[in-house]
Amino acid sequence: MTIDDAVPATAATRELVAKLHDELIRWQLVVWTAGNVSSRVPGADLFVIKPSGVDYDALAADNMIVCDLDGNVVDGERAPSSDTAAHAYVYRAMPHVGGVVHTHSTYATAWAARGEPIPCVLTAMADEFGGEIPVGPFALIGNDDIGAGIVKTLSGHRSPAVLMQNHGVFTIGRDARAAVKAAVMCEDVARTVHIARQLGAPLPIDPADIDRLFDRYQNVYGQR
Amino acid sequence: MTIDDAVPATAATRELVAKLHDELIRWQLVVWTAGNVSSRVPGADLFVIKPSGVDYDALAADNMIVCDLDGNVVDGERAPSSDTAAHAYVYRAMPHVGGVVHTHSTYATAWAARGEPIPCVLTAMADEFGGEIPVGPFALIGNDDIGAGIVKTLSGHRSPAVLMQNHGVFTIGRDARAAVKAAVMCEDVARTVHIARQLGAPLPIDPADIDRLFDRYQNVYGQR
Amino acid sequence: MTIDDAVPATAATRELVAKLHDELIRWQLVVWTAGNVSSRVPGADLFVIKPSGVDYDALAADNMIVCDLDGNVVDGERAPSSDTAAHAYVYRAMPHVGGVVHTHSTYATAWAARGEPIPCVLTAMADEFGGEIPVGPFALIGNDDIGAGIVKTLSGHRSPAVLMQNHGVFTIGRDARAAVKAAVMCEDVARTVHIARQLGAPLPIDPADIDRLFDRYQNVYGQR
Amino acid sequence: MTIDDAVPATAATRELVAKLHDELIRWQLVVWTAGNVSSRVPGADLFVIKPSGVDYDALAADNMIVCDLDGNVVDGERAPSSDTAAHAYVYRAMPHVGGVVHTHSTYATAWAARGEPIPCVLTAMADEFGGEIPVGPFALIGNDDIGAGIVKTLSGHRSPAVLMQNHGVFTIGRDARAAVKAAVMCEDVARTVHIARQLGAPLPIDPADIDRLFDRYQNVYGQR
Repeated sequence: MTIDDAVPATAATRELVAKLHDELIRWQLVVWTAGNVSSRVPGADLFVIKPSGVDYDALAADNMIVCDLDGNVVDGERAPSSDTAAHAYVYRAMPHVGGVVHTHSTYATAWAARGEPIPCVLTAMADEFGGEIPVGPFALIGNDDIGAGIVKTLSGHRSPAVLMQNHGVFTIGRDARAAVKAAVMCEDVARTVHIARQLGAPLPIDPADIDRLFDRYQNVYGQR
Repeated sequence: MTIDDAVPATAATRELVAKLHDELIRWQLVVWTAGNVSSRVPGADLFVIKPSGVDYDALAADNMIVCDLDGNVVDGERAPSSDTAAHAYVYRAMPHVGGVVHTHSTYATAWAARGEPIPCVLTAMADEFGGEIPVGPFALIGNDDIGAGIVKTLSGHRSPAVLMQNHGVFTIGRDARAAVKAAVMCEDVARTVHIARQLGAPLPIDPADIDRLFDRYQNVYGQR
Repeated sequence: MTIDDAVPATAATRELVAKLHDELIRWQLVVWTAGNVSSRVPGADLFVIKPSGVDYDALAADNMIVCDLDGNVVDGERAPSSDTAAHAYVYRAMPHVGGVVHTHSTYATAWAARGEPIPCVLTAMADEFGGEIPVGPFALIGNDDIGAGIVKTLSGHRSPAVLMQNHGVFTIGRDARAAVKAAVMCEDVARTVHIARQLGAPLPIDPADIDRLFDRYQNVYGQR
Repeated sequence: MTIDDAVPATAATRELVAKLHDELIRWQLVVWTAGNVSSRVPGADLFVIKPSGVDYDALAADNMIVCDLDGNVVDGERAPSSDTAAHAYVYRAMPHVGGVVHTHSTYATAWAARGEPIPCVLTAMADEFGGEIPVGPFALIGNDDIGAGIVKTLSGHRSPAVLMQNHGVFTIGRDARAAVKAAVMCEDVARTVHIARQLGAPLPIDPADIDRLFDRYQNVYGQR
């Protein structure tokens, strides 16, 4: 009996995760194989993630990797993404998170290389991030340091995105699609604010207005 | 009886508006769902606009939203764009306007973040905008402040584009295609002038030459 | 009898010119309808050029415009490009030129906005341009000033590209494909040298080495 | 008898080399015809390289050029890439190298124009390059100077990429695909570090951490 037989929601999650990687390419967040999306399997202590070092063109539901929340492979012929431990840590620590995305998208990673948060100077940034996009610690791959840095940083912020110092971006969402959206919007605002700053200081937005924009967007925007 | 039966021009307007969103993607003015096009329905006090929070790939004539000039939905199953009130305000206040476009295109929004108008230092900018691209006020979504800021700013300018402070771009046109063209050209000149300024001061163009270029372009260019 | 019957080479030239506009899109040199390619009709005092204000998608051999060397339309239902007079001037003044291209490509136009030539600090630039890319005068559309400025500036240079001040780029070639290549390479070097200069001064290349590179490239490179 | 009959591995190598050029376009490393990939033919003193001055669209297995390790054409109707001598030099001097790539990718070439190595301030850069990306000497085409400069520079570094001063990038790999990956990653880190530096100084990474990241990535990452 396969894991998809035991947990039928797994099949749809594989399909979703494979397909969402197309968005990383479409919005130019990744090169080569350097970025990954995962999704919690609804109703199970499992998540689905991209295999390691495989071309985006070759991603499909049947080569996605199913892991338990400790990051152990439950089903899959290949090695999971080398960032699997960080994804697993987030799922263990943040039960409301249904999806995690990691990229080295150019502008966001440039802020991360300076260890500098992105200031909230755009209404769209207030909508989506509710303030600045914070910086998490420098951490090496290979243990729980990256996962712990993500969780610690995001726990104090409304932002669903964190810039890991000298590394790249991790985003979270209630589901994988929301995490992908946060990754796309993070790069978009990282780029716009960078370009704004190249020729002078962006005008600040009153923190009370940031609160108003964030509250409205989280509660009103989109199809209900 | 549907609204398209009552106002037959509505059907063609839906088709046009759905299709013009392709241009926002093609010329890289938008990410995710962050931009919208609307068009007045010829001969009626109605306009057609994009639904809120829906992927560009999923846009089609039959999911466009028809609104009256107060921004109330007349026909459509989904919520209209969250920027509908601003579009409606422009149609009410500016009877010659047949189309409105809103984007957060990167370079134009970077100028908007600094609250700085784009100076007219390119002949193509003189052609299309007849001078600088002005900045409108900071305004929150949720009432008529954005619409009123657009109308007040554009009323004193030849430019069909306004940079709303800390927000993004609104453009107008005699029809929706002209408004889309203005959005495309606004980003193009915002980018070129930004890049020019990165390495020094662009050379000014004599205001009398700007007038000559604008007059000629508005009256001679294109197919008659 | 049509012009294509009278001058059979015209048909192939229409095909070529329509198709070469695809390269302007592919290499991102143009937005909307802002750029044009023309080609002399071999063996005739004619050239073929893009119609004015028509979408790139709609360009085809049968809607190209055939002009005489004074820029008068000899065959075509639409108005020719508004830059036709400049193309015509070049063909009249420079008999060795078989193709002309005009764009507002971003980085080249940024140099043009500052009226600053692009210094030759890349071996690929030495190959293709044999030195700096020069700046031509500010000139208004509507008479021969643009054409005369192009010809005067290029006559003193090995470069097949000229940056017209506050305007954009014109390139020439022995045929239209060579002029398109020059437009592509002009934007490429404009971008690379701009980016190099953002973080410091590019290293100069010895003028004698520029000569060696140019001579070799013009005589050895490519398929003979 | 053809070379492919004599050395059957040649046929597959032609196919691979033609196809890998698609990656140069996909990741926007090249314009027009300015970049090339080569691959050693396994088990033979031969390599396969792109023909000179031919469009990427027209590349196919049967128009690839087969050369011996002195760069002489063994099979092929066209002239080989004008960079063939440099590729040949690398294959002669570095027996472990199975593939070589050359591009003028924008950001990497901008660093090369200033003669400035790219500092290792990103974990992905530590993974792939094990430290800074070094600069090789200014060298003219036409003899072994470029090849010798590549080999001399890379021999003292873990980096598979070298920035040739005022020229562009050469990368090496155990096979051609690895060399292409290095070219893609080189441009990606050149761009990100450039953008980081535009607004301040990137934070350094401890050299011991760079060593740890490099060792882990070379030994653990990807599918085993």
